[in-house]
Amino acid sequence: MAKIGFIGLGLMGRPMAKRLLAAGHELRVFNRSRPPVDELVRLGAEAANSPMGAARGSDYTILMLPDSKDVRGVVLGGSGVEQGAVAGSVVIDMSTISPATEREIYEALKKRGVGYLDAPVTGGTIGAERGTLVIMVGGDYEVFKSAEPILSVLGQKIVYMGPSGSGQLTKLCNQISVALSLLGTCEALLLASKVGLDLSKVIDVISTGAGSSWQLANLGPRIVEGDYRPGFKAEHLLKDLRITLEISQDHSLPLLGTGLMHQLFKSLVARGDGALGTQAVAKILEELAGHKISKSSRGAEES
Amino acid sequence: MAKIGFIGLGLMGRPMAKRLLAAGHELRVFNRSRPPVDELVRLGAEAANSPMGAARGSDYTILMLPDSKDVRGVVLGGSGVEQGAVAGSVVIDMSTISPATEREIYEALKKRGVGYLDAPVTGGTIGAERGTLVIMVGGDYEVFKSAEPILSVLGQKIVYMGPSGSGQLTKLCNQISVALSLLGTCEALLLASKVGLDLSKVIDVISTGAGSSWQLANLGPRIVEGDYRPGFKAEHLLKDLRITLEISQDHSLPLLGTGLMHQLFKSLVARGDGALGTQAVAKILEELAGHKISKSSRGAEES
Repeated sequence: MAKIGFIGLGLMGRPMAKRLLAAGHELRVFNRSRPPVDELVRLGAEAANSPMGAARGSDYTILMLPDSKDVRGVVLGGSGVEQGAVAGSVVIDMSTISPATEREIYEALKKRGVGYLDAPVTGGTIGAERGTLVIMVGGDYEVFKSAEPILSVLGQKIVYMGPSGSGQLTKLCNQISVALSLLGTCEALLLASKVGLDLSKVIDVISTGAGSSWQLANLGPRIVEGDYRPGFKAEHLLKDLRITLEISQDHSLPLLGTGLMHQLFKSLVARGDGALGTQAVAKILEELAGHKISKSSRGAEES
Repeated sequence: MAKIGFIGLGLMGRPMAKRLLAAGHELRVFNRSRPPVDELVRLGAEAANSPMGAARGSDYTILMLPDSKDVRGVVLGGSGVEQGAVAGSVVIDMSTISPATEREIYEALKKRGVGYLDAPVTGGTIGAERGTLVIMVGGDYEVFKSAEPILSVLGQKIVYMGPSGSGQLTKLCNQISVALSLLGTCEALLLASKVGLDLSKVIDVISTGAGSSWQLANLGPRIVEGDYRPGFKAEHLLKDLRITLEISQDHSLPLLGTGLMHQLFKSLVARGDGALGTQAVAKILEELAGHKISKSSRGAEES
């Protein structure tokens, strides 16, 4: 069993850390706020009082944090992972952040003989609880192979994508597909609702053929019900689309659809709806159209 | 067994007519060009020399034609279906055309006691051959019930959507989802290719989660190979998007993404690529980006 430092016990990090504990690994955990640390300590983890403390003496240090600046701060900042991690150990960043930041940290740790992987995930909190995440990994191949047994506790599909940053780049491609099939879902439901079709039947029919997508099948029904509770928060997709456009800017690559979705999510977050689920982007499109898709909203208008 | 008139023996109509023949129905067929008529006659169908002739004495007359003007001409024009169809018989239009045209024809035939259904399909030529089409039906419910046994020879999922035009409206919602998940597929592959990721791995990873779509899984690999052979022709999706925007115009409904895809397909068709498969829209995005996704095209550049 390995000694593992775990930093970032949020919606994703907490269930992931629990799985590693349950698999018999020795965990030292760090989090900005204390309650999730206490929860993990009750389950057998040790509390670290800094990122450096979580990394010290660990074979692997796993990070699950909100954004690029958080990861950079936790690794390269004061009392950071860099100061605790010993040569030969591996740091695995499972956050979704900028590929450029990952390469910067990879280089910094390499000088100290510490391995670094970017290993963002898809599959949400349910995937984190069940250990069914999809994990896209960038970094040195031999470091990936050494970390694979640990990653396999967390994910059911673990794919090595190439050099440092490749995991994040793959995740961004995934988010492009997420964002645009969500737009297709919203516009299909908007037209269906406007012309008075039975929305459940429309989702059922479209889900059988060439128009089918995960977004339609899973978020379509929530949009129809006006249920905007988060599976994945709008503010997080906005961040991912922002990073995607930064990369595409670096490569002079125009992305018409992704740019449009970035603006729509910026609008959603600007209105204070960033903590809603991504499907809440339907609200922006409904306002542009002056028409509500959702049954419950229509019920409210009628009453 | 029923007497069936069948008009329009194109890529879809021909295999559909064959299935009806094989199921033991008596077929009278009409087509502008003669070769597919001869083929069906060899299989046991009778040749009609006009749409009126195909409809005369038939219990059901099925249409599978390119666009609204074709259907209107064949039904309401000289020597049209309207003049052959007897009271109590049913005309089933399985083309994808304007819902407004369907309602116009429905009203005209209703006056003569002839039932009329709009019943567009998804599933392509493979679905037509195997009888696994999805069929979305609009019209009077009792007429739908009488036609259901015939439709079940052609499709595995047959859904009654509501009054005349509802089948076409559902199909248009489907095409919105098709178009935008295709855009997501193209932009994801464009970024992946630009940054040098392994495109097969990217498609494999994205297809497992929240970014998955039929378009990505089925057309993604063709885009990577630069294979633009048509499953569904670009010019036909352009027509469907045009009709979608006509409807949305009638309802003052803005559809940002659908409008964008309509323009991109207009560009593709304007360049003379309308007979290519819909995945060829990747070519337009590649030109905007000054970068080719496709392996074979890159191979060609290198050689």
